[in-house]
Amino acid sequence: MTDRVILAYSGGLDTSVAIPYLAEQTGAEVVAVAIDVGQGGEDLEVIRKRALGCGAVESEVIDARAEYAADYCLPALRANALYQDRYPLVSALSRPLIVAHLVAAARRHNGTIVAHGCTGKGNDQVRFEVGIGALAPDLQVIAPARDYAWTRDEAIAYCQQRDLPIDVTPKSPYSIDQNLWGRAVETGFLEDIWNPPIEDLYSYTSDPAAAHDPDEVVITFDRGNPVAIDGETVTPYEAITILNRRAGAAGVGRLDMVEDRLVGIKSREVYEAPGAIALITAHQELENVTVERDLARFKKSVDQRWGELVYDGLWFSPLKRSLDAFVDESQQPVSGEIRLTLHGGRAVVTGRRSDASLYDFSLATYDTGDAFDQSLAKGFVTLWGLPSKLAAARDARTLPGPAE
Amino acid sequence: MTDRVILAYSGGLDTSVAIPYLAEQTGAEVVAVAIDVGQGGEDLEVIRKRALGCGAVESEVIDARAEYAADYCLPALRANALYQDRYPLVSALSRPLIVAHLVAAARRHNGTIVAHGCTGKGNDQVRFEVGIGALAPDLQVIAPARDYAWTRDEAIAYCQQRDLPIDVTPKSPYSIDQNLWGRAVETGFLEDIWNPPIEDLYSYTSDPAAAHDPDEVVITFDRGNPVAIDGETVTPYEAITILNRRAGAAGVGRLDMVEDRLVGIKSREVYEAPGAIALITAHQELENVTVERDLARFKKSVDQRWGELVYDGLWFSPLKRSLDAFVDESQQPVSGEIRLTLHGGRAVVTGRRSDASLYDFSLATYDTGDAFDQSLAKGFVTLWGLPSKLAAARDARTLPGPAE
Amino acid sequence: MTDRVILAYSGGLDTSVAIPYLAEQTGAEVVAVAIDVGQGGEDLEVIRKRALGCGAVESEVIDARAEYAADYCLPALRANALYQDRYPLVSALSRPLIVAHLVAAARRHNGTIVAHGCTGKGNDQVRFEVGIGALAPDLQVIAPARDYAWTRDEAIAYCQQRDLPIDVTPKSPYSIDQNLWGRAVETGFLEDIWNPPIEDLYSYTSDPAAAHDPDEVVITFDRGNPVAIDGETVTPYEAITILNRRAGAAGVGRLDMVEDRLVGIKSREVYEAPGAIALITAHQELENVTVERDLARFKKSVDQRWGELVYDGLWFSPLKRSLDAFVDESQQPVSGEIRLTLHGGRAVVTGRRSDASLYDFSLATYDTGDAFDQSLAKGFVTLWGLPSKLAAARDARTLPGPAE
Amino acid sequence: MTDRVILAYSGGLDTSVAIPYLAEQTGAEVVAVAIDVGQGGEDLEVIRKRALGCGAVESEVIDARAEYAADYCLPALRANALYQDRYPLVSALSRPLIVAHLVAAARRHNGTIVAHGCTGKGNDQVRFEVGIGALAPDLQVIAPARDYAWTRDEAIAYCQQRDLPIDVTPKSPYSIDQNLWGRAVETGFLEDIWNPPIEDLYSYTSDPAAAHDPDEVVITFDRGNPVAIDGETVTPYEAITILNRRAGAAGVGRLDMVEDRLVGIKSREVYEAPGAIALITAHQELENVTVERDLARFKKSVDQRWGELVYDGLWFSPLKRSLDAFVDESQQPVSGEIRLTLHGGRAVVTGRRSDASLYDFSLATYDTGDAFDQSLAKGFVTLWGLPSKLAAARDARTLPGPAE
Repeated sequence: MTDRVILAYSGGLDTSVAIPYLAEQTGAEVVAVAIDVGQGGEDLEVIRKRALGCGAVESEVIDARAEYAADYCLPALRANALYQDRYPLVSALSRPLIVAHLVAAARRHNGTIVAHGCTGKGNDQVRFEVGIGALAPDLQVIAPARDYAWTRDEAIAYCQQRDLPIDVTPKSPYSIDQNLWGRAVETGFLEDIWNPPIEDLYSYTSDPAAAHDPDEVVITFDRGNPVAIDGETVTPYEAITILNRRAGAAGVGRLDMVEDRLVGIKSREVYEAPGAIALITAHQELENVTVERDLARFKKSVDQRWGELVYDGLWFSPLKRSLDAFVDESQQPVSGEIRLTLHGGRAVVTGRRSDASLYDFSLATYDTGDAFDQSLAKGFVTLWGLPSKLAAARDARTLPGPAE
Repeated sequence: MTDRVILAYSGGLDTSVAIPYLAEQTGAEVVAVAIDVGQGGEDLEVIRKRALGCGAVESEVIDARAEYAADYCLPALRANALYQDRYPLVSALSRPLIVAHLVAAARRHNGTIVAHGCTGKGNDQVRFEVGIGALAPDLQVIAPARDYAWTRDEAIAYCQQRDLPIDVTPKSPYSIDQNLWGRAVETGFLEDIWNPPIEDLYSYTSDPAAAHDPDEVVITFDRGNPVAIDGETVTPYEAITILNRRAGAAGVGRLDMVEDRLVGIKSREVYEAPGAIALITAHQELENVTVERDLARFKKSVDQRWGELVYDGLWFSPLKRSLDAFVDESQQPVSGEIRLTLHGGRAVVTGRRSDASLYDFSLATYDTGDAFDQSLAKGFVTLWGLPSKLAAARDARTLPGPAE
Repeated sequence: MTDRVILAYSGGLDTSVAIPYLAEQTGAEVVAVAIDVGQGGEDLEVIRKRALGCGAVESEVIDARAEYAADYCLPALRANALYQDRYPLVSALSRPLIVAHLVAAARRHNGTIVAHGCTGKGNDQVRFEVGIGALAPDLQVIAPARDYAWTRDEAIAYCQQRDLPIDVTPKSPYSIDQNLWGRAVETGFLEDIWNPPIEDLYSYTSDPAAAHDPDEVVITFDRGNPVAIDGETVTPYEAITILNRRAGAAGVGRLDMVEDRLVGIKSREVYEAPGAIALITAHQELENVTVERDLARFKKSVDQRWGELVYDGLWFSPLKRSLDAFVDESQQPVSGEIRLTLHGGRAVVTGRRSDASLYDFSLATYDTGDAFDQSLAKGFVTLWGLPSKLAAARDARTLPGPAE
Repeated sequence: MTDRVILAYSGGLDTSVAIPYLAEQTGAEVVAVAIDVGQGGEDLEVIRKRALGCGAVESEVIDARAEYAADYCLPALRANALYQDRYPLVSALSRPLIVAHLVAAARRHNGTIVAHGCTGKGNDQVRFEVGIGALAPDLQVIAPARDYAWTRDEAIAYCQQRDLPIDVTPKSPYSIDQNLWGRAVETGFLEDIWNPPIEDLYSYTSDPAAAHDPDEVVITFDRGNPVAIDGETVTPYEAITILNRRAGAAGVGRLDMVEDRLVGIKSREVYEAPGAIALITAHQELENVTVERDLARFKKSVDQRWGELVYDGLWFSPLKRSLDAFVDESQQPVSGEIRLTLHGGRAVVTGRRSDASLYDFSLATYDTGDAFDQSLAKGFVTLWGLPSKLAAARDARTLPGPAE
C-alpha cells in the first residue's frame, strides 16, 4: 500500500504547493486536512476543493470551533493564562487541538506521516511535534519549510511551473495566525522594535482612539466558565465570539510586546485578542471576590506555570493534567456576575456580584455596627510581626551596621 | 521626666483631637510629627502650628519626598510590585518610611510611646506596629481609634467641648490616603461592590473618556530606575511627579478591585496611580527586552512575593532584604528607553531600544539571510518533548482510558 | 436546657481536672470525648470511665485509627509532607481529625462549647480553633490552660482538693504527643539546643547504634498508596503499623530539629516517626521512577506548600483542596514496588520496579545498541544554551567587568 | 598559523587516544589541559607527560582544588543544593570550573577549538558546551565520542595500531567521575534498577554497617561557610577534605537514585559524597536556628531552582547570579556551631549554638516565668483562621455537599 501523508492544510500558497511537492519527495499520497478553529477568511469548502485541485487524494475540513472554545480556550481562561503577563496564548492554544485532529485523521486515513508548514525558528514546530510525539509516537513528521529548507520564492516558481490552481499575487507583507481566541501579526517593519505598530495591522479591533460609545456588558460565570452574556445563556463559542465583536469594537485587547520564544530568542509580536482580554479581566476580578486569599496567592504560580508550559508546547504533558486538576478544583466557587465597561481600548470592571462571594459587607464596612471585633487585632499584629521583630533585634545585636 | 508620645500627625480632625486626648489618657506630653510623602493638600507649616494649637509640646514637619521616591517607590518599580496583579502598594509603601521617621523622632525627643490613627480592621496598623517592633522594640504603641475604641462622633464632641482649633464641618464622605505613588479612596457607597465608582472620587486622574490629545513620552531607565524623561535628566521624585501629571491627564492608572486584606477579610478599593502604572508598564517591557528568559520567569515569583510581603507589613524583614538582593542583581542590564503613548486611560508601549537588548534582529527576522540555523531545531524539539513522549507512551500502556 | 461542653479528653491529669473545672466555670455539663489515633497507652475503656468519675455527664471513646491512616496519613505521604524538609507533621495531622470528631460529637450531644487542653504558645491551639471555625463557626471554644491561665500546680491542688480519681504522682519530665504517624517529645533539658537528646526520650525506635540484623522490606504502592508489604496486602493502618515496628526496630526515623512555630517563635523538637520516614523514603523514589520531570519539579513546590499549610492549621482550607487535587492527579502512575533495607537508623532504597516506570533501559544504557540518537544532542544543546549565550555576549559588551 | 585544539584531558584511554585522533581529523595541533578538582588517582605530572607522549604540542596541569572548594562547592552548600532532594551536584559543579580553565587555556595558547570526552546522551556535554558558549562564543566545540560516533573498541584498536603509551588492559566495569565534592559511579548491572549496589562500587565511604566508633565533630560556620572544624581554622578545601575522610569513615553520604537527566531520560546513579552530605546537614540545621521563617520558606524555592539550573548546565546564566545574590544576603546571620555525630552511615545533628540564634529560650520554654504573652494568641488565631472560616461558611451555603 502506498504511504499517506496527512498535511495540516490552510488553503494558502505554502501548504497548497506542499501537496504535490510532498508527494514527489516522499512518494506518498497526500491527504489534506483543514481545521476550523474560528480563523474566518475563505469558505472552507473552497479550501477543501483547492487541495484536491493540487493533487490531494483526500481532502477534509473539520469544524472544531465549539471544541476549541470549550476544551482549549476555557481552560486557559480558568488559568488566567497570559504568557509574560500579557499574551493570551492565541496560537499556542490552537496547536494541540490541530494535532489531535491530525492524529485522528492519520488513523482514519492510514497515514504514517504528518506534515505541517512551520519553520525551524518558531514555537509552533515544537507544539506540533511534541504533541504528535505524545499522541502518536509512531508517526513520522515532516516540515517542508524546515526540513527541505524550502523558501517562498521556490514555492512560487514551483506553483507556476505546475500551473497549480493557486493565486500567487504578491503576498501580503503580514504573516498572520488567527483563530477564535485572537490574532497574531508579524511583519518586517515590526522587526525594528522601536517602530510603533500601524493601524493597518489590526483586524479584530477598531482603533481605540476613534470616537465610539461605551458598551456595558454583564458576564455570568459558572465555576470559572462564561455561561451568559447580559442575561442570555451562551455556549463557550458564542461567549467568545460575542465578546470578540463587542470588545473589538471598543478597541480592547491590542498587545505589542517583546516575547521569549521557546527556541531561545526574543521576538517582537503584535496581537489582538478582544474577547480573551475582556473575559480574563472579568474572570480575575470574580476570583478576587470568590477565591480565598491563600489559594489566590498560590494559584498565581500555578497560572504562570500553566501559561509557560502551554506556550512551550507541553499541552499533552503530565504536569498540564495536574495543574488542570488544581485549577478546576479552585474554580468551584467562581460563579457570579461581572459588569464590564468596554470603551477606548479598556475593559474595566465596574461591578461584581456572587452568591459565593467572600466579600462580607458587615466585616468590611467602616460604618457603625460592623461585625469585626477590633480587639483581636492586637494579638494578631504582635504574633504576625514576632519573627521580624526577633530577627531585627538579633541583627541590631550582631550585624556591623544598622538593621534597616 | 514626663513620658512623651510621638504622634503620627496628619493635620486632620482625628489626629488633632488625639493630641489632648492622648495627653489625658497617658499623662504624657505629645510630640506631633507630620511627614511629607507627597500627599499635597494643606501647607505643612499650617499643619505644624495646628498641632501646637491643640496642645502638642513639640511639632515637626519632615520633607521625606525625595527619600520616599528613591528608597521606597523605586524598589517597588524594580520589582514591578502589583499586589493581586493590580495594586501598586500606594499606602503600603509609605508606612515603613513613616515608621522610620517616627522612630527617629522618638529618639530625638526621648519618646517612649508612638501613636497612630489607624483602626483595628485595616492593614496599616500592622504595617505601623510590625515596623516599630522591628526598628524599636522598646517603644510602646497606642492606636486611639482601636485601643480606646474611639469613634468619630466622640472625637467631634470632644473637639467642640475643648474648643480645639479644628474645622469640624461635615466630613467628606471619602476616606482618602494619598502620596507620591498614588491615592486610595474608600467610601460608603463603594462598599456595595456592584456599584460603579463615580467621577467625583478621582483627583490624580482626568476622565479617560474625555477628549484629549495623545501624549507621547520617552522614559530612560538605568538599571531599572527612571533617569530621564524625553531626554531630560530627572530625579526619582521628578520622574514620578511628571508622570503623575502627564499620565494622570490621560486618565491612566485608575483601579477598582476587591482586595485581600492581611487581617483576613476582603475589601473593595478604588485607587489612582498614574505615574506608578505608566512607570511599571514601561519597566516591564524594558525587562522583556533585556532580561534573559529563565531569569524573567523566576523573577515573577520574586516580584509577587515582594508585593505580598510589603502589603503584609513586612518591609523590615529578612526576606525583604534577600528579595531586594535578587531584584537588584537582575536589574543590571535593565537600561534603555521605552516610548509610551498616554491616551484614553491607557499607557501603551510603542517602542523600546537598549544597548543591553537581548533582541537580536539577525536571529529574529524572517528575512532571507538570517543567522538562525534551523537545522538545530530537530534535535531540540525531539529532546525537549522526550519526557512528554515517554510519559504518554507509558500512560497509553498502563492507564485505563486514553492518554489525552 | 443546660449548655454542654465537648471536651477533647486524653485521660491525663490536665483534661481530667478540666472536667469539674469547666463545669464550675461555665455552668455547663461536660461531655468527654477521647479519640484513638493510635496513641497507644492506657486502655480506652479505663479512660472513658475516668471521665465519668471526674463528673462528665457523657463519655465516649472513638476508634479513628483506620480513618486517620487512610484520610490523613496517606494524603501526607502522597505529598511527601516534611515540614522544613524533616518533620512528617505528626501532631499537625491528627488535629483536624480530632476536630472533625469533636464537631460531630457536639452535634450528637447538643454541645455549644468545645474545650481543648492546648496552651497559648503552641501550634495546636491554632489547629483546633481554625478547624472548629471552619467546620462549626457557631461553636464557642475554651482552652482552660490558656484562657484561664491555669497552671499544672493549680490543677494538682484542685485535683487533691476534690479527691478526683486521678493519679498525681510526679509528672514525667516529658511532654509527649504520639499517634500512628509518629511521636513528639519536649522536655526541659532539650530547651538548651546544644544538649543532645538522650536514649530515654525514645519509645517508637530502638537505638540505631545497637547491634541488629538488617531488615529488607518490599513495599507495593498503588497510585501513591502503600497496598502491600512483602507481597501481603495491607490496609493503610496496617502498612503504617508494620513499618513503625520494623523500621522502629532498626532505629529509623529519629529527628531532632529547631522548628519554626506558627506563632512566630522557634522551638526545639525531638520526633520519632519510623513508619512515616520509611514510607516517604520509598514513595519519593517511586516518584523518581514514575513521575515525569517537569511534574516532579513543580510538585516539590506543591508538596512544600502542603506541608506548610497543614502545619499552620489550615487543613480545612480551599488551598488544601486544590493542592490535594494536584497531588492526586500526579499519583496516577505512582504504582510499583520499592525494596528498602532498614538498618542502623537508615531506610535505604535498594531496588524499584514498576509497570509505569519511565526509566527506559534501552535509552539509558551505555551499552552498544542503545536507542538514544546522539545526533539530536547538538541541536538541543545549542538552543538550550542560546539564552545564556546571548546574555553573556551582551554582558561582555555592556557591563564594566567580566561576564562571569 | 596552525589551528589549536584545547582538549580537556583526563589521562585515561579515551582522551589520550583523542590527541592523535583529533590532530588527524582537524589538522590542528592539540594542547592537553588536565585540571585537578580533587579527583585524586594518578600523579598529575605523569598525566601531563602522557599527553606529550601521545602527541600533544603542549600539556598543562592546573591545580584548581582551592578555587573549586571556595567558588563552586561553597555556593552549593549555601544553597543546600540537592538535585531531586538527594544529589549534591558532584559532576555538575566541576564542569563550569573546568570550562573556565579551558577557555583561559584557549586564550593563552591561541586555541580556536575546545574538545571534551562527553557522549551525546549525558548532562555533561550540555554543561561543557553551554558554558563555553557563554564564556567564549567564538570557540568551536568538538566531542569526538559524540560527533565522530567513536566507540571504545575503535579507540582501543586505534591505540594499539599507533602504539600509544597507554595501558589498554581490560577496562574497569565502572564509569566513574570523582572530585572533591563527591563521586559518581555508573556500571552495567546498575542499569537494572531492581539490582542493589554492591560494596565494591564505593571508594570514598566505608561500609556503614561495619563496626566503628561514633565520631563527633563540631563545624563552625561564618555566613554560611565552614571556617573551623573542632575549633581549628580550616580553608574551604580543608573543611571538605577532612569531612570526606571522617564522614566517609562512618559510611555517610551514599546515594542510590533514579534521576531526571536534562536530555529527557531517566538514569540510575550511585553517588558517594560524605563531606558534602555532612556539611549540608549541618548547614541546614544552622539555618533552622538563624534564618527567619518567611525567608527560610522562600529560600527553599530558591535553593531548588539553584540546584536545577546548575544541574541543567546553566552556571553562567543571569538567573544563577540573581539566585546567588539572594542566597548570599540570606547567609548574613548563618554563623555559629553545629555538633554532628557521624556513625553508621548517618550524620546526625546533636547540638547547635550561635550568637545569631533566633531561638529564644525565654519565649520557647514551658517553664514558669516565660516571656510569651499567651493572651495574644486568641486574636492571632481568630484572624489567622478568618479566611478559612469565611470560605467554609460560604461553601456550606453554596456547595452541594459538605464543606470538608
